[in-house]
Amino acid sequence: MIYLDNAATTLRKPPEVIDAVVQAMNALGNSSRGTHAGSLKASRTVYEAREKLAGFFRCQRADHVVFTCNSTEALNTAINGTIDPRRHVITTDMEHNSVLRPLYRLAAEQRVELSFVTANRHGIIDYTDFEKLIRPNTQAIICTHASNLTGDMIDVARVGQVAKKHNIIFIVDASQTAGCFPIDMEAFGIDILCFTGHKGIMGPQGTGGMCMREGVKIRPWKVGGTGVQTYSKTQPDQLPALLEAGTLNGHGIAGLSAAVDYINSVGIEAIRDKEEMLTRRFYDGVSGIDGVTVYGGFTAKHRAPVVALNFRGYDSGAVSDELSETYGIATRPGAHCAPRMHQALGTTQQGAVRFSFGWFTDIHEIDAAVCAVKAL
Amino acid sequence: MIYLDNAATTLRKPPEVIDAVVQAMNALGNSSRGTHAGSLKASRTVYEAREKLAGFFRCQRADHVVFTCNSTEALNTAINGTIDPRRHVITTDMEHNSVLRPLYRLAAEQRVELSFVTANRHGIIDYTDFEKLIRPNTQAIICTHASNLTGDMIDVARVGQVAKKHNIIFIVDASQTAGCFPIDMEAFGIDILCFTGHKGIMGPQGTGGMCMREGVKIRPWKVGGTGVQTYSKTQPDQLPALLEAGTLNGHGIAGLSAAVDYINSVGIEAIRDKEEMLTRRFYDGVSGIDGVTVYGGFTAKHRAPVVALNFRGYDSGAVSDELSETYGIATRPGAHCAPRMHQALGTTQQGAVRFSFGWFTDIHEIDAAVCAVKAL
Repeated sequence: MIYLDNAATTLRKPPEVIDAVVQAMNALGNSSRGTHAGSLKASRTVYEAREKLAGFFRCQRADHVVFTCNSTEALNTAINGTIDPRRHVITTDMEHNSVLRPLYRLAAEQRVELSFVTANRHGIIDYTDFEKLIRPNTQAIICTHASNLTGDMIDVARVGQVAKKHNIIFIVDASQTAGCFPIDMEAFGIDILCFTGHKGIMGPQGTGGMCMREGVKIRPWKVGGTGVQTYSKTQPDQLPALLEAGTLNGHGIAGLSAAVDYINSVGIEAIRDKEEMLTRRFYDGVSGIDGVTVYGGFTAKHRAPVVALNFRGYDSGAVSDELSETYGIATRPGAHCAPRMHQALGTTQQGAVRFSFGWFTDIHEIDAAVCAVKAL
Repeated sequence: MIYLDNAATTLRKPPEVIDAVVQAMNALGNSSRGTHAGSLKASRTVYEAREKLAGFFRCQRADHVVFTCNSTEALNTAINGTIDPRRHVITTDMEHNSVLRPLYRLAAEQRVELSFVTANRHGIIDYTDFEKLIRPNTQAIICTHASNLTGDMIDVARVGQVAKKHNIIFIVDASQTAGCFPIDMEAFGIDILCFTGHKGIMGPQGTGGMCMREGVKIRPWKVGGTGVQTYSKTQPDQLPALLEAGTLNGHGIAGLSAAVDYINSVGIEAIRDKEEMLTRRFYDGVSGIDGVTVYGGFTAKHRAPVVALNFRGYDSGAVSDELSETYGIATRPGAHCAPRMHQALGTTQQGAVRFSFGWFTDIHEIDAAVCAVKAL
């Protein structure tokens, strides 16, 4: 199988990641629960992972790195924990349902007002819209770092400046960029960064989290046991316990920690450069083919390693199946949980065939995929 | 290390569980996302796990088995998804904070009324209280299947009859019993069973879930991408997608599935019998020692494999540390996230030293622990 569905999950993991999970499953107790050797080993493993991720994303404090089971949980926690009733939120057409559905729910139940920075028919936004949409009751800007459908990035440093100028919370969904692109929370002005562990970071499924800027106020979402302050009727105030009820996925976090080590040993710039090279090579190979429509912009300096396309009017599911069955190429068709982006691109009926690349994608796999597209 | 902290997490896993996680990390795509071989393999793995768990807990429908990252998330989802403002909930003093804190929050924010079936100074409840506490606006009974502190079980079949008679929702926290004790949702009259994967089931951390009776109405809690019905602003109505936003922990679920196979191959009655034998042997060994107070009742036919005790007035943390450092015995001290149970037992200051046993606990480890307690 030529695996070109890395934006869904990186199927190929560094062997170090799998080894770390195995070691953890043989040795870890429950972190933050008791002080015997197994429990302490779990606590240390989890804390080291916090420290590594804080360094990786330039989060000021390791104890402000909070673990969740995926970025959807992180986004639900961030959105429900910060937005107050009747306040206003600015987001974009480029968002995934993991941002949109929590916001739609707040709009329906808490009278939260939503404004969208619109994408044009190429899926591109106008940055000046962010500032134009600000109202007196605007509480937050929430946006993705890169579209999961087209791979186009949002210059979050630029958006962060607008948020800072107007003193509003800035939440970024880094599901498609964490591990693919260097992220600097401080330089980008990000208040809450939500990430997943099993995509670009190449860690296990069941991992993810959020990095918080010091001083950001947040209410807990999931509540329960924390191993500390048992007699309080509410969650402990301090991070990370405030947002981490129940037993952490210590086994997965051990793998995530090894994945960050792996990326640091290779260098995230090297990963970004390779993935962008692969993306460009694929784009160059397919964009001139008669009957193929490629979505998104390919003029920006950087992009996530994703190319979405369609063949004339063919159903994207049928095309993806053909690629899989005849050519052994794994892609993803359909709507990709990005409804507003499909509306912008005019592909709500057809969906799109998404090719997404990763660190372990080989250049020959790209060429084989280009050949398959040509043959189709 | 003599590991007697299995109620926190079963540190020793069947080798089959670890093998299944490794295989999954080498082969699984993202379940319910696309139709290529990697994605289908993930979807099949997850669906097989649902089927096995449905059989294991006697849940009527495999698609009513929902995966979460731990039982705390399952309990938050069950409690927040079913209880309406100003309704009344009956629970017990035996609960863990994963039940109490979600309920306290509903009481504070939604005017939900709470009543507690109280535990006496031995930690034992009176079953007739459940029916006595019912009011016209009672919506649910929520209780644990066994105290995580004393190991005393609640006869949930008996409570389930009360719930059924009064047509109220019955939610059970099986964190301490799933995998240790046969659970039959239908026979016990359970509407929502919340479980964790990493304790008695001996699966990976980061796994757990809830089994729903057909027809139980629930609102989604975490919302986001589901891979289906992208254009709906709300979660899809059908289970399990209604309650499963974001990428599932496919790697962990593969391990959980193998863990259920392992338990089925051994036989859950065999596990229960061994664990109860170990518990009884330890209890018999320590209960007569001068200065040792054992908490809970030891007259019931069945109990969870837990014994909590204290040495005169010594701080439980100091005792647990001594057991760990001098004798290499891993136990858990402190308050165990069970505040009302400590209040009932009169141990809020001292906490308690909890010894908890598992399928891989050896009888010689029990004897060594009894000797250590005697020596102390």
